[in-house]
Amino acid sequence: MREFELIRELLSRLPDAPDRVRIGPGDDAAVVSADGETAVTVDALIEGVHFRVEQFPPAAIGRKALAAALSDLAAMGAEPGEAYVTIGIPPGFGEARCLELYEGIATVTESAGVAVLGGDVNRSGQLLLAVTAVGRGEPGTLVGRSGARPGDAVAVTGELGGAAAGLLLLEGSEPGDAAAQADALRARQLAPTPRLAEGKALAATGARAMIDISDGLGADADHVARASGVRLRIEIGRAPIQDGVREVAAASGRDPLELARAGEDYELLACLPPEAVDAARDAVERTGGRLTIVGEALEGEGAELVGLDGLMVPLGGFDHLA
Amino acid sequence: MREFELIRELLSRLPDAPDRVRIGPGDDAAVVSADGETAVTVDALIEGVHFRVEQFPPAAIGRKALAAALSDLAAMGAEPGEAYVTIGIPPGFGEARCLELYEGIATVTESAGVAVLGGDVNRSGQLLLAVTAVGRGEPGTLVGRSGARPGDAVAVTGELGGAAAGLLLLEGSEPGDAAAQADALRARQLAPTPRLAEGKALAATGARAMIDISDGLGADADHVARASGVRLRIEIGRAPIQDGVREVAAASGRDPLELARAGEDYELLACLPPEAVDAARDAVERTGGRLTIVGEALEGEGAELVGLDGLMVPLGGFDHLA
Repeated sequence: MREFELIRELLSRLPDAPDRVRIGPGDDAAVVSADGETAVTVDALIEGVHFRVEQFPPAAIGRKALAAALSDLAAMGAEPGEAYVTIGIPPGFGEARCLELYEGIATVTESAGVAVLGGDVNRSGQLLLAVTAVGRGEPGTLVGRSGARPGDAVAVTGELGGAAAGLLLLEGSEPGDAAAQADALRARQLAPTPRLAEGKALAATGARAMIDISDGLGADADHVARASGVRLRIEIGRAPIQDGVREVAAASGRDPLELARAGEDYELLACLPPEAVDAARDAVERTGGRLTIVGEALEGEGAELVGLDGLMVPLGGFDHLA
Repeated sequence: MREFELIRELLSRLPDAPDRVRIGPGDDAAVVSADGETAVTVDALIEGVHFRVEQFPPAAIGRKALAAALSDLAAMGAEPGEAYVTIGIPPGFGEARCLELYEGIATVTESAGVAVLGGDVNRSGQLLLAVTAVGRGEPGTLVGRSGARPGDAVAVTGELGGAAAGLLLLEGSEPGDAAAQADALRARQLAPTPRLAEGKALAATGARAMIDISDGLGADADHVARASGVRLRIEIGRAPIQDGVREVAAASGRDPLELARAGEDYELLACLPPEAVDAARDAVERTGGRLTIVGEALEGEGAELVGLDGLMVPLGGFDHLA
């Protein structure tokens, strides 16, 4: 019966369920009343594949697992609603760290207004979290990947490269001249923020296709391009790069643009008709965010990243545990 | 890019999405239009915890993972809608077995009318499946665990013990005088059937609380009893036992009632007002099922299993990989 006690304890760390929830955690299924369209996404974080426990405190693992799932909802322009969290606990992980993990989840549920309505706690050979996130929108307002059209502007929110620079620092790289930015860079890797408000602002101002930048700027642009049947041409030099990324790259002998396209920043890439760009930028700025045009959609298929020298850059991010 | 190609191949094994699906697999999130109340459940199957790969062919693992999640929807009386499947693939598992696994999932989606709208394929130290199942019902019709009242009859669908007997056979026990039933018993363990039609019939005819019998008759009755604030008194001798279970128990020197309360049969336990029992039984029989009264709800708290001798029997199922 230990599993049931642990689940009760874990759930007690989370805020009360909102009114739309008719049956909350602890039943065979949760029951929620809601109208409109529902967006559902699943995302898993697995020890040794997506993170190393030596680098990620338990709270950061819980936080990042939920944030990554919510980032998918942000990329639809959805209002986040509920989450369901399946955990696999390896031998010796212990209940204290399990509770810390849930406290990390709770920090995100509070800031994003998400109710955790269920889950499953299992033994497992390695630590894993599988998160299901459910969001909503008015009919027809949620934005997929397939709507980009030739002539659209390609924009990204926020700043890129911080997550990859943060990972280098966590792996022991020197910050070089970025000592003052090192904590902020590590936080981009450990505690990413889903761009929920920005996603809703972009959907409301006419974004035709969106994706969150988790696999890397080039790889994610390629997903949008292929789903939409267009070519996305992105000039990597126009991408906004987070403070300190250039310095960390220099200290480890890397190209800063490699970090900028490495992924895991959980910013959004959006394709917008040119006439919608000003309103979209204003709307994103009103959320406290930033929107930068980095390229355009053309006839053709697939994404291309153009470097500072006008030559093509590989699309892939880097496999951060390689 | 191998992951994306594999996902495309896996999804091609599944039927097309129904009309309510506005954005299907392959986007950041799936988008579904639906009214009423939504039931959501998550369920994980992990190698070495819930199954051994030597006993479970890949198709059976996929099939059982989805069936177990749908069984939770059956226990709400929900109409099944969509599923999302996260897979962790261990080194050396190979794509062929991965595809077999998805073919097992596809057999359930077809029989249950469920659309698989997304998922995630990851590397992992051991084989694991985490399934999210989404179902629906008219407002107020979905049945949780907490509605049982003193005086209610306690009923179970189908027959018990088959899954545990099947597991003993898979582990090498002799079938004894149950050679003719051995395949059917193994199938109860390998390919359980979620009681979806029975669950809807019970919800429609007045069931006040339901649960699926996965942890074991006593353990699951205890969940309902504690959620409802009643005592559930169950006479294990009244439980319908599947053909061949007594013989397998005899051949391995076990008590057949131990197998009957071991769990994983994925039958439903329902609490019904006495005046609803006849209509509920008729409705379940019209689905091709069977409903048997095994006990009653009383004032108090918790479940009690009463053996043939009138003495208490432990509530727990058995940990089948112990």
